[in-house]
Amino acid sequence: MTYCVGLKLNEGLVLLSDTRTNAGLDNISTYRKMFFFEKPGERIITIMTAGSLSVTQTTIARLQEAIDLPEADETTSIMRAQTMLQVATIIGNTLNRTRREIVEQCRELNQQASASMIVGGQRAGGEMRLFLIYPEGNFIEATEDTPFLQIGEHKYGKPILDRVVRPDTSLDDAQKAALLSMDSTLRSNLSVGMPLDLAVIRKDDCRVSHRRIAEGDPAFMAMSAAWSAALRDSFVKVTI
Amino acid sequence: MTYCVGLKLNEGLVLLSDTRTNAGLDNISTYRKMFFFEKPGERIITIMTAGSLSVTQTTIARLQEAIDLPEADETTSIMRAQTMLQVATIIGNTLNRTRREIVEQCRELNQQASASMIVGGQRAGGEMRLFLIYPEGNFIEATEDTPFLQIGEHKYGKPILDRVVRPDTSLDDAQKAALLSMDSTLRSNLSVGMPLDLAVIRKDDCRVSHRRIAEGDPAFMAMSAAWSAALRDSFVKVTI
Repeated sequence: MTYCVGLKLNEGLVLLSDTRTNAGLDNISTYRKMFFFEKPGERIITIMTAGSLSVTQTTIARLQEAIDLPEADETTSIMRAQTMLQVATIIGNTLNRTRREIVEQCRELNQQASASMIVGGQRAGGEMRLFLIYPEGNFIEATEDTPFLQIGEHKYGKPILDRVVRPDTSLDDAQKAALLSMDSTLRSNLSVGMPLDLAVIRKDDCRVSHRRIAEGDPAFMAMSAAWSAALRDSFVKVTI
Repeated sequence: MTYCVGLKLNEGLVLLSDTRTNAGLDNISTYRKMFFFEKPGERIITIMTAGSLSVTQTTIARLQEAIDLPEADETTSIMRAQTMLQVATIIGNTLNRTRREIVEQCRELNQQASASMIVGGQRAGGEMRLFLIYPEGNFIEATEDTPFLQIGEHKYGKPILDRVVRPDTSLDDAQKAALLSMDSTLRSNLSVGMPLDLAVIRKDDCRVSHRRIAEGDPAFMAMSAAWSAALRDSFVKVTI
Protein backbone atom coordinates (compact mmCIF):
# COMPACT_ATOMS: atom_id res chain seq x y z
CA MET A 1 0.00 0.00 0.00
CA THR A 2 0.89 3.64 0.24
CA TYR A 3 0.24 6.77 2.21
CA CYS A 4 0.27 10.18 0.56
CA VAL A 5 -1.11 13.41 1.97
CA GLY A 6 -1.39 16.88 0.47
CA LEU A 7 -2.19 20.05 2.43
CA LYS A 8 -3.36 23.31 0.88
CA LEU A 9 -2.61 26.25 3.15
CA ASN A 10 -2.88 29.98 2.60
CA GLU A 11 0.94 30.08 2.44
CA GLY A 12 1.37 27.20 0.02
CA LEU A 13 1.22 23.44 -0.52
CA VAL A 14 2.82 20.67 1.53
CA LEU A 15 3.00 17.17 0.04
CA LEU A 16 4.30 13.99 1.64
CA SER A 17 4.52 10.44 0.35
CA ASP A 18 6.07 7.16 1.40
CA THR A 19 7.93 4.85 -1.01
CA ARG A 20 6.86 1.31 -0.15
CA THR A 21 5.24 -0.93 -2.71
CA ASN A 22 4.25 -4.52 -2.25
CA ALA A 23 2.90 -7.36 -4.36
CA GLY A 24 1.59 -9.55 -1.60
CA LEU A 25 3.49 -9.43 1.66
CA ASP A 26 6.69 -11.08 0.48
CA ASN A 27 7.54 -8.86 -2.46
CA ILE A 28 8.37 -5.43 -1.12
CA SER A 29 10.15 -2.69 -3.00
CA THR A 30 10.94 1.00 -2.84
CA TYR A 31 9.49 3.22 -5.54
CA ARG A 32 9.15 6.95 -5.62
CA LYS A 33 5.49 8.02 -5.60
CA MET A 34 6.04 11.77 -5.94
CA PHE A 35 6.69 13.32 -9.34
CA PHE A 36 7.45 16.92 -10.33
CA PHE A 37 6.75 18.71 -13.58
CA GLU A 38 8.40 22.07 -13.14
CA LYS A 39 9.38 25.16 -15.08
CA PRO A 40 10.63 27.19 -12.12
CA GLY A 41 8.83 30.48 -11.71
CA GLU A 42 6.33 29.66 -14.45
CA ARG A 43 4.71 26.36 -13.48
CA ILE A 44 4.97 23.62 -10.87
CA ILE A 45 2.87 20.47 -10.89
CA THR A 46 3.33 17.72 -8.32
CA ILE A 47 1.70 14.31 -8.65
CA MET A 48 1.55 11.71 -5.86
CA THR A 49 0.35 8.21 -6.70
CA ALA A 50 -1.30 5.28 -4.92
CA GLY A 51 -2.40 1.96 -6.35
CA SER A 52 -1.12 -0.55 -8.90
CA LEU A 53 2.42 0.35 -9.90
CA SER A 54 1.83 -0.65 -13.53
CA VAL A 55 -1.05 1.84 -13.72
CA THR A 56 0.75 4.72 -11.99
CA GLN A 57 4.08 4.28 -13.81
CA THR A 58 2.43 4.01 -17.22
CA THR A 59 0.26 7.05 -16.49
CA ILE A 60 3.28 9.15 -15.47
CA ALA A 61 5.25 7.92 -18.51
CA ARG A 62 2.38 8.83 -20.83
CA LEU A 63 2.05 12.29 -19.29
CA GLN A 64 5.79 12.81 -19.89
CA GLU A 65 5.54 11.48 -23.44
CA ALA A 66 2.66 13.87 -24.18
CA ILE A 67 4.79 16.78 -22.92
CA ASP A 68 7.70 15.78 -25.15
CA LEU A 69 5.71 15.32 -28.36
CA PRO A 70 6.42 17.97 -31.03
CA GLU A 71 2.65 18.48 -31.49
CA ALA A 72 2.05 18.91 -27.72
CA ASP A 73 -0.63 21.52 -26.99
CA GLU A 74 -2.71 22.78 -24.10
CA THR A 75 -5.18 19.91 -24.39
CA THR A 76 -2.54 17.15 -24.23
CA SER A 77 0.47 18.47 -22.28
CA ILE A 78 0.21 19.35 -18.61
CA MET A 79 3.13 21.77 -19.16
CA ARG A 80 1.04 23.73 -21.68
CA ALA A 81 -2.40 23.51 -20.07
CA GLN A 82 -3.83 26.96 -19.34
CA THR A 83 -5.13 26.19 -15.85
CA MET A 84 -4.65 23.69 -13.00
CA LEU A 85 -8.21 22.50 -13.73
CA GLN A 86 -7.08 21.58 -17.23
CA VAL A 87 -4.00 19.87 -15.77
CA ALA A 88 -6.23 17.77 -13.49
CA THR A 89 -8.47 16.91 -16.44
CA ILE A 90 -5.55 15.73 -18.60
CA ILE A 91 -4.14 13.63 -15.74
CA GLY A 92 -7.60 12.20 -14.94
CA ASN A 93 -8.19 11.21 -18.55
CA THR A 94 -4.73 9.63 -18.88
CA LEU A 95 -5.16 7.73 -15.62
CA ASN A 96 -8.60 6.44 -16.58
CA ARG A 97 -7.49 5.33 -20.06
CA THR A 98 -4.39 3.58 -18.68
CA ARG A 99 -6.34 1.88 -15.89
CA ARG A 100 -9.00 0.60 -18.29
CA GLU A 101 -6.41 -0.84 -20.67
CA ILE A 102 -4.58 -2.63 -17.87
CA VAL A 103 -7.82 -3.96 -16.33
CA GLU A 104 -8.69 -5.33 -19.80
CA GLN A 105 -5.26 -6.98 -20.05
CA CYS A 106 -5.72 -8.55 -16.61
CA ARG A 107 -9.27 -9.74 -17.23
CA GLU A 108 -8.33 -13.38 -17.73
CA LEU A 109 -6.51 -13.48 -14.40
CA ASN A 110 -9.43 -11.79 -12.65
CA GLN A 111 -6.89 -9.34 -11.19
CA GLN A 112 -7.73 -5.84 -10.08
CA ALA A 113 -5.71 -2.83 -11.17
CA SER A 114 -6.53 0.63 -9.96
CA ALA A 115 -4.87 3.86 -8.85
CA SER A 116 -5.61 7.30 -7.53
CA MET A 117 -3.52 10.45 -7.45
CA ILE A 118 -3.09 13.74 -5.64
CA VAL A 119 -2.21 16.62 -7.94
CA GLY A 120 -1.10 19.98 -6.60
CA GLY A 121 0.46 23.01 -8.19
CA GLN A 122 0.23 26.47 -9.64
CA ARG A 123 0.85 28.30 -12.88
CA ALA A 124 2.18 31.86 -12.73
CA GLY A 125 -0.81 34.19 -12.61
CA GLY A 126 -3.18 31.34 -11.79
CA GLU A 127 -4.45 29.92 -8.54
CA MET A 128 -2.69 27.34 -6.41
CA ARG A 129 -4.84 24.18 -6.37
CA LEU A 130 -4.85 20.68 -4.94
CA PHE A 131 -6.88 17.79 -6.41
CA LEU A 132 -7.57 14.15 -5.59
CA ILE A 133 -8.06 12.20 -8.83
CA TYR A 134 -10.09 9.00 -8.66
CA PRO A 135 -9.33 5.87 -10.72
CA GLU A 136 -12.14 6.81 -13.13
CA GLY A 137 -10.53 10.18 -13.83
CA ASN A 138 -13.02 12.39 -12.00
CA PHE A 139 -11.66 14.50 -9.16
CA ILE A 140 -12.36 16.56 -6.05
CA GLU A 141 -10.51 19.59 -4.77
CA ALA A 142 -9.20 20.74 -1.38
CA THR A 143 -11.15 23.69 0.03
CA GLU A 144 -11.10 26.08 2.99
CA ASP A 145 -13.27 23.62 4.94
CA THR A 146 -11.22 20.57 4.01
CA PRO A 147 -7.68 21.75 3.37
CA PHE A 148 -6.08 18.29 3.08
CA LEU A 149 -6.44 15.29 0.80
CA GLN A 150 -5.17 11.74 1.41
CA ILE A 151 -4.75 8.60 -0.71
CA GLY A 152 -3.78 5.05 0.30
CA GLU A 153 -3.73 4.07 3.96
CA HIS A 154 -5.37 7.29 5.12
CA LYS A 155 -7.14 6.29 8.33
CA TYR A 156 -4.29 6.00 10.86
CA GLY A 157 -3.04 9.50 10.14
CA LYS A 158 -6.38 11.29 9.81
CA PRO A 159 -7.11 12.09 13.50
CA ILE A 160 -4.08 14.39 13.89
CA LEU A 161 -4.87 16.21 10.62
CA ASP A 162 -8.53 16.62 11.63
CA ARG A 163 -7.37 18.29 14.82
CA VAL A 164 -4.62 20.66 13.74
CA VAL A 165 -4.78 21.55 10.03
CA ARG A 166 -6.56 24.79 9.06
CA PRO A 167 -6.00 26.99 5.98
CA ASP A 168 -4.05 29.46 8.14
CA THR A 169 -1.68 26.76 9.47
CA SER A 170 1.91 27.81 8.71
CA LEU A 171 4.00 25.84 6.24
CA ASP A 172 6.28 24.73 9.09
CA ASP A 173 3.35 23.46 11.14
CA ALA A 174 1.82 21.84 8.08
CA GLN A 175 5.03 19.90 7.43
CA LYS A 176 5.03 18.81 11.05
CA ALA A 177 1.37 17.72 10.87
CA ALA A 178 2.01 15.77 7.66
CA LEU A 179 5.08 14.07 9.16
CA LEU A 180 3.23 13.17 12.39
CA SER A 181 0.33 11.83 10.34
CA MET A 182 2.84 9.72 8.39
CA ASP A 183 4.55 8.65 11.63
CA SER A 184 1.27 7.23 13.01
CA THR A 185 0.74 5.37 9.74
CA LEU A 186 4.28 3.96 9.62
CA ARG A 187 3.94 2.67 13.18
CA SER A 188 0.62 0.94 12.66
CA ASN A 189 0.84 -0.35 9.09
CA LEU A 190 3.66 -2.41 7.62
CA SER A 191 2.68 -1.66 4.04
CA VAL A 192 3.75 1.97 4.40
CA GLY A 193 7.51 2.56 4.70
CA MET A 194 10.47 4.89 4.65
CA PRO A 195 12.12 6.73 2.94
CA LEU A 196 9.71 9.64 2.54
CA ASP A 197 9.43 12.43 -0.02
CA LEU A 198 8.48 15.82 1.39
CA ALA A 199 7.73 18.74 -0.92
CA VAL A 200 6.85 22.35 -0.14
CA ILE A 201 5.55 24.80 -2.73
CA ARG A 202 5.26 28.39 -1.52
CA LYS A 203 2.32 30.28 -2.92
CA ASP A 204 3.15 32.19 -6.13
CA ASP A 205 6.75 30.86 -6.18
CA CYS A 206 5.88 28.25 -8.82
CA ARG A 207 8.84 26.12 -7.77
CA VAL A 208 9.22 23.17 -5.44
CA SER A 209 11.51 22.52 -2.53
CA HIS A 210 11.94 18.76 -2.16
CA ARG A 211 13.55 16.72 0.57
CA ARG A 212 14.07 12.96 0.77
CA ILE A 213 13.85 11.72 4.36
CA ALA A 214 15.84 8.50 4.65
CA GLU A 215 15.35 5.59 7.03
CA GLY A 216 16.99 6.61 10.30
CA ASP A 217 16.97 10.36 9.50
CA PRO A 218 18.00 11.89 12.85
CA ALA A 219 15.53 14.81 12.74
CA PHE A 220 12.60 12.55 11.81
CA MET A 221 13.55 9.98 14.47
CA ALA A 222 13.82 12.72 17.09
CA MET A 223 10.42 14.13 16.11
CA SER A 224 8.89 10.66 16.19
CA ALA A 225 10.35 9.94 19.64
CA ALA A 226 9.30 13.36 20.96
CA TRP A 227 5.77 12.83 19.65
CA SER A 228 5.55 9.39 21.28
CA ALA A 229 6.78 10.85 24.55
CA ALA A 230 4.35 13.79 24.29
CA LEU A 231 1.46 11.41 23.58
CA ARG A 232 2.34 9.28 26.58
CA ASP A 233 2.64 12.40 28.77
CA SER A 234 -0.72 13.61 27.52
CA PHE A 235 -2.17 10.18 28.17
CA VAL A 236 -1.02 10.34 31.79
CA LYS A 237 -2.43 13.85 32.27
CA VAL A 238 -5.88 13.24 30.81
CA THR A 239 -8.33 11.86 33.33
CA ILE A 240 -11.59 9.99 32.96
CA MET B 1 -19.92 0.44 10.52
CA THR B 2 -18.76 -0.18 14.03
CA TYR B 3 -15.79 0.11 16.31
CA CYS B 4 -15.19 -2.41 19.11
CA VAL B 5 -11.99 -2.93 21.05
CA GLY B 6 -11.08 -5.47 23.70
CA LEU B 7 -7.98 -5.27 25.94
CA LYS B 8 -6.57 -8.16 27.91
CA LEU B 9 -4.48 -6.93 30.84
CA ASN B 10 -2.91 -8.75 33.76
CA GLU B 11 -5.61 -7.20 35.99
CA GLY B 12 -8.56 -8.07 33.77
CA LEU B 13 -10.46 -7.32 30.57
CA VAL B 14 -11.69 -3.97 29.24
CA LEU B 15 -14.22 -3.94 26.41
CA LEU B 16 -15.66 -0.97 24.56
CA SER B 17 -18.15 -0.76 21.69
CA ASP B 18 -20.13 1.93 19.88
CA THR B 19 -23.80 1.54 18.94
CA ARG B 20 -24.19 2.97 15.45
CA THR B 21 -25.51 0.85 12.62
CA ASN B 22 -26.20 2.01 9.12
CA ALA B 23 -27.73 0.60 5.95
CA GLY B 24 -26.25 3.01 3.46
CA LEU B 25 -25.69 6.53 4.72
CA ASP B 26 -29.33 7.55 5.13
CA ASN B 27 -30.56 4.76 7.36
CA ILE B 28 -28.82 5.11 10.70
CA SER B 29 -29.88 3.42 13.92
CA THR B 30 -28.67 2.67 17.40
CA TYR B 31 -28.17 -0.97 18.35
CA ARG B 32 -26.28 -2.43 21.23
CA LYS B 33 -23.25 -4.42 20.07
CA MET B 34 -22.11 -5.70 23.46
CA PHE B 35 -23.77 -8.75 25.04
CA PHE B 36 -23.24 -10.43 28.39
CA PHE B 37 -23.74 -14.04 29.38
CA GLU B 38 -23.11 -14.08 33.10
CA LYS B 39 -23.48 -16.28 36.15
CA PRO B 40 -21.77 -13.94 38.62
CA GLY B 41 -18.81 -15.53 40.35
CA GLU B 42 -18.98 -18.63 38.18
CA ARG B 43 -18.79 -17.45 34.57
CA ILE B 44 -18.76 -14.26 32.53
CA ILE B 45 -18.75 -14.17 28.74
CA THR B 46 -18.88 -10.90 26.81
CA ILE B 47 -19.47 -10.76 23.06
CA MET B 48 -18.99 -7.65 20.92
CA THR B 49 -20.21 -7.72 17.32
CA ALA B 50 -19.39 -6.00 14.02
CA GLY B 51 -20.94 -6.57 10.61
CA SER B 52 -24.38 -7.26 9.18
CA LEU B 53 -26.99 -6.79 11.88
CA SER B 54 -29.07 -9.74 10.63
CA VAL B 55 -26.04 -12.03 11.05
CA THR B 56 -25.03 -10.74 14.49
CA GLN B 57 -28.55 -10.60 15.95
CA THR B 58 -29.43 -14.07 14.71
CA THR B 59 -26.15 -15.48 16.01
CA ILE B 60 -26.71 -13.98 19.47
CA ALA B 61 -30.34 -15.18 19.48
CA ARG B 62 -29.23 -18.71 18.57
CA LEU B 63 -26.57 -18.73 21.27
CA GLN B 64 -29.27 -17.73 23.80
CA GLU B 65 -31.68 -20.34 22.45
CA ALA B 66 -29.02 -23.03 22.78
CA ILE B 67 -28.48 -22.02 26.42
CA ASP B 68 -32.21 -22.22 27.17
CA LEU B 69 -32.83 -25.63 25.58
CA PRO B 70 -33.60 -28.40 28.08
CA GLU B 71 -31.04 -30.64 26.37
CA ALA B 72 -28.32 -27.95 26.50
CA ASP B 73 -24.87 -29.42 27.18
CA GLU B 74 -21.24 -28.38 27.15
CA THR B 75 -20.98 -28.77 23.38
CA THR B 76 -23.96 -26.53 22.57
CA SER B 77 -24.36 -24.02 25.41
CA ILE B 78 -21.74 -21.37 26.09
CA MET B 79 -22.98 -21.34 29.72
CA ARG B 80 -22.04 -25.00 30.09
CA ALA B 81 -18.85 -25.15 28.00
CA GLN B 82 -15.88 -26.35 30.08
CA THR B 83 -13.38 -23.78 28.84
CA MET B 84 -13.25 -20.38 27.13
CA LEU B 85 -11.73 -22.17 24.12
CA GLN B 86 -14.88 -24.27 23.87
CA VAL B 87 -16.98 -21.09 24.25
CA ALA B 88 -15.11 -19.50 21.31
CA THR B 89 -15.59 -22.66 19.26
CA ILE B 90 -19.37 -22.74 19.87
CA ILE B 91 -19.69 -19.04 19.01
CA GLY B 92 -17.49 -19.43 15.90
CA ASN B 93 -19.55 -22.38 14.66
CA THR B 94 -22.85 -20.57 15.29
CA LEU B 95 -21.59 -17.42 13.57
CA ASN B 96 -20.33 -19.32 10.54
CA ARG B 97 -23.54 -21.34 10.15
CA THR B 98 -25.71 -18.22 10.48
CA ARG B 99 -23.58 -16.22 8.06
CA ARG B 100 -23.64 -18.98 5.44
CA GLU B 101 -27.43 -19.30 5.64
CA ILE B 102 -27.93 -15.55 5.26
CA VAL B 103 -25.43 -15.30 2.38
CA GLU B 104 -27.39 -18.12 0.68
CA GLN B 105 -30.66 -16.22 1.23
CA CYS B 106 -29.12 -13.05 -0.23
CA ARG B 107 -27.56 -14.77 -3.22
CA GLU B 108 -30.16 -13.54 -5.72
CA LEU B 109 -29.59 -9.93 -4.69
CA ASN B 110 -25.82 -10.36 -4.87
CA GLN B 111 -25.64 -8.82 -1.39
CA GLN B 112 -22.87 -9.44 1.05
CA ALA B 113 -23.51 -10.44 4.65
CA SER B 114 -20.69 -10.97 7.09
CA ALA B 115 -19.76 -10.40 10.71
CA SER B 116 -16.94 -10.77 13.18
CA MET B 117 -16.93 -10.84 16.97
CA ILE B 118 -14.72 -10.23 19.97
CA VAL B 119 -15.32 -12.70 22.79
CA GLY B 120 -13.82 -12.22 26.23
CA GLY B 121 -14.42 -13.87 29.56
CA GLN B 122 -13.51 -16.32 32.24
CA ARG B 123 -14.91 -19.33 34.00
CA ALA B 124 -14.14 -19.80 37.71
CA GLY B 125 -10.94 -21.83 37.94
CA GLY B 126 -10.14 -21.27 34.28
CA GLU B 127 -8.09 -18.67 32.49
CA MET B 128 -9.27 -15.24 31.41
CA ARG B 129 -9.20 -15.11 27.61
CA LEU B 130 -9.96 -12.77 24.74
CA PHE B 131 -10.68 -13.93 21.17
CA LEU B 132 -11.40 -12.36 17.81
CA ILE B 133 -13.75 -14.58 15.82
CA TYR B 134 -13.70 -14.30 12.04
CA PRO B 135 -16.79 -14.61 9.81
CA GLU B 136 -15.78 -18.19 8.93
CA GLY B 137 -15.76 -19.18 12.60
CA ASN B 138 -12.00 -19.52 13.08
CA PHE B 139 -10.40 -17.25 15.66
CA ILE B 140 -7.25 -15.68 17.07
CA GLU B 141 -6.45 -14.80 20.66
CA ALA B 142 -4.94 -11.80 22.46
CA THR B 143 -1.46 -12.49 23.84
CA GLU B 144 1.25 -10.81 25.91
CA ASP B 145 2.73 -9.35 22.73
CA THR B 146 -0.59 -8.17 21.33
CA PRO B 147 -2.87 -7.52 24.28
CA PHE B 148 -5.71 -5.88 22.32
CA LEU B 149 -8.10 -6.92 19.56
CA GLN B 150 -10.24 -4.67 17.38
CA ILE B 151 -13.15 -5.16 14.94
CA GLY B 152 -14.85 -2.72 12.58
CA GLU B 153 -13.28 0.69 11.89
CA HIS B 154 -10.05 -0.16 13.67
CA LYS B 155 -7.45 2.02 11.95
CA TYR B 156 -8.14 5.50 13.38
CA GLY B 157 -7.85 4.28 16.95
CA LYS B 158 -4.91 1.93 16.55
CA PRO B 159 -1.97 4.38 16.91
CA ILE B 160 -2.83 5.29 20.52
CA LEU B 161 -3.28 1.62 21.49
CA ASP B 162 0.00 0.68 19.80
CA ARG B 163 1.75 3.29 21.92
CA VAL B 164 0.30 2.81 25.40
CA VAL B 165 -1.25 -0.62 25.94
CA ARG B 166 0.89 -3.32 27.58
CA PRO B 167 -0.21 -6.36 29.63
CA ASP B 168 0.76 -4.49 32.83
CA THR B 169 -1.36 -1.44 31.97
CA SER B 170 -3.80 -0.82 34.85
CA LEU B 171 -7.54 -1.27 34.32
CA ASP B 172 -8.04 2.48 34.75
CA ASP B 173 -5.43 3.32 32.13
CA ALA B 174 -6.80 0.62 29.84
CA GLN B 175 -10.27 2.18 30.02
CA LYS B 176 -8.74 5.55 29.23
CA ALA B 177 -6.79 4.12 26.27
CA ALA B 178 -9.91 2.40 24.91
CA LEU B 179 -11.96 5.58 25.27
CA LEU B 180 -9.30 7.74 23.58
CA SER B 181 -9.03 5.18 20.80
CA MET B 182 -12.82 5.41 20.40
CA ASP B 183 -12.68 9.22 20.57
CA SER B 184 -10.27 9.37 17.59
CA THR B 185 -12.57 7.04 15.65
CA LEU B 186 -15.73 9.00 16.47
CA ARG B 187 -14.09 12.24 15.32
CA SER B 188 -12.85 10.91 12.01
CA ASN B 189 -15.59 8.49 10.95
CA LEU B 190 -19.31 9.22 10.79
CA SER B 191 -20.29 5.54 10.75
CA VAL B 192 -19.19 5.10 14.38
CA GLY B 193 -21.37 6.84 16.98
CA MET B 194 -22.41 7.36 20.58
CA PRO B 195 -23.66 6.05 22.98
CA LEU B 196 -20.89 3.68 24.02
CA ASP B 197 -20.86 0.50 26.08
CA LEU B 198 -17.88 0.09 28.40
CA ALA B 199 -17.33 -3.13 30.32
CA VAL B 200 -14.66 -4.11 32.83
CA ILE B 201 -14.09 -7.66 34.04
CA ARG B 202 -11.60 -7.98 36.88
CA LYS B 203 -9.47 -11.11 36.78
CA ASP B 204 -10.97 -14.02 38.73
CA ASP B 205 -14.12 -12.01 39.64
CA CYS B 206 -16.16 -13.71 36.92
CA ARG B 207 -18.59 -10.80 36.86
CA VAL B 208 -18.90 -7.71 34.70
CA SER B 209 -19.15 -4.05 35.54
CA HIS B 210 -20.93 -2.28 32.68
CA ARG B 211 -21.47 1.39 31.97
CA ARG B 212 -23.41 3.06 29.16
CA ILE B 213 -21.81 6.34 28.11
CA ALA B 214 -24.49 8.56 26.58
CA GLU B 215 -24.12 11.28 23.95
CA GLY B 216 -22.99 14.40 25.78
CA ASP B 217 -21.73 12.47 28.85
CA PRO B 218 -19.87 15.20 30.80
CA ALA B 219 -16.90 13.02 31.84
CA PHE B 220 -16.40 11.68 28.31
CA MET B 221 -16.72 15.16 26.78
CA ALA B 222 -14.23 16.55 29.28
CA MET B 223 -11.77 13.74 28.52
CA SER B 224 -12.21 14.27 24.79
CA ALA B 225 -11.63 18.03 25.11
CA ALA B 226 -8.62 17.52 27.40
CA TRP B 227 -7.15 15.02 24.94
CA SER B 228 -7.61 17.40 22.01
CA ALA B 229 -5.98 20.19 24.01
CA ALA B 230 -3.13 17.91 25.07
CA LEU B 231 -2.59 16.78 21.46
CA ARG B 232 -2.48 20.38 20.27
CA ASP B 233 -0.06 21.29 23.08
CA SER B 234 2.12 18.33 22.18
CA PHE B 235 1.96 19.37 18.54
CA VAL B 236 3.26 22.82 19.43
CA LYS B 237 6.06 21.40 21.57
CA VAL B 238 7.37 18.85 19.09
CA THR B 239 9.88 20.31 16.65
CA ILE B 240 11.12 19.17 13.28
